[in-house]
Amino acid sequence: MDQLNQVAVYKKANVYFDGKVTSRTVMLPDGSKATLGIMLPGTYTFSTDQKERMDIQAGELEYRLENGDWIKIEGEGSFDIAAHSSFEVKVVSVVDYYCTYG
Amino acid sequence: MDQLNQVAVYKKANVYFDGKVTSRTVMLPDGSKATLGIMLPGTYTFSTDQKERMDIQAGELEYRLENGDWIKIEGEGSFDIAAHSSFEVKVVSVVDYYCTYG
Repeated sequence: MDQLNQVAVYKKANVYFDGKVTSRTVMLPDGSKATLGIMLPGTYTFSTDQKERMDIQAGELEYRLENGDWIKIEGEGSFDIAAHSSFEVKVVSVVDYYCTYG
Repeated sequence: MDQLNQVAVYKKANVYFDGKVTSRTVMLPDGSKATLGIMLPGTYTFSTDQKERMDIQAGELEYRLENGDWIKIEGEGSFDIAAHSSFEVKVVSVVDYYCTYG
């Protein structure tokens, strides 16, 4: 089982869209932040402060970056989002994701 | 912000009831397991192997232990579940919980 070692986890969840998107904040050994999250079926728009990398661990979705096309991920896949921008997702089946920042 | 330090977190989520209940497994420094989870509105039944302690961090629910009465928790509260038994929950608003085992 793939795991994150020697980390700190905030006990309080991050809850968005009435609980259809939730995540836990993890502080990695190098001091950087990551989140482990769940997205239930639906369409969501997120904005970014820092650059983000979304690693999809399971589930099916389509994502679209600003001025980009819809791109499908099924099962596993990753995409990078620029800082100070936004992205949309259409979640088809429960998505398990890992997001890193900066 | 209350956090768990020096832990390991399994990257893969635990997903139940079509994603309406999800959690992350955390391995604590003493080697014991815990989970940080979310329950969306709905009614669910869980069974236990080990003794469990459910710490409700946010949200509203009612729970019922085997042969017990419905008991309401709103916001924060805890309850203990015997090993090899089961409990029911009626979740009214998104619940953020922390569960410890044994």
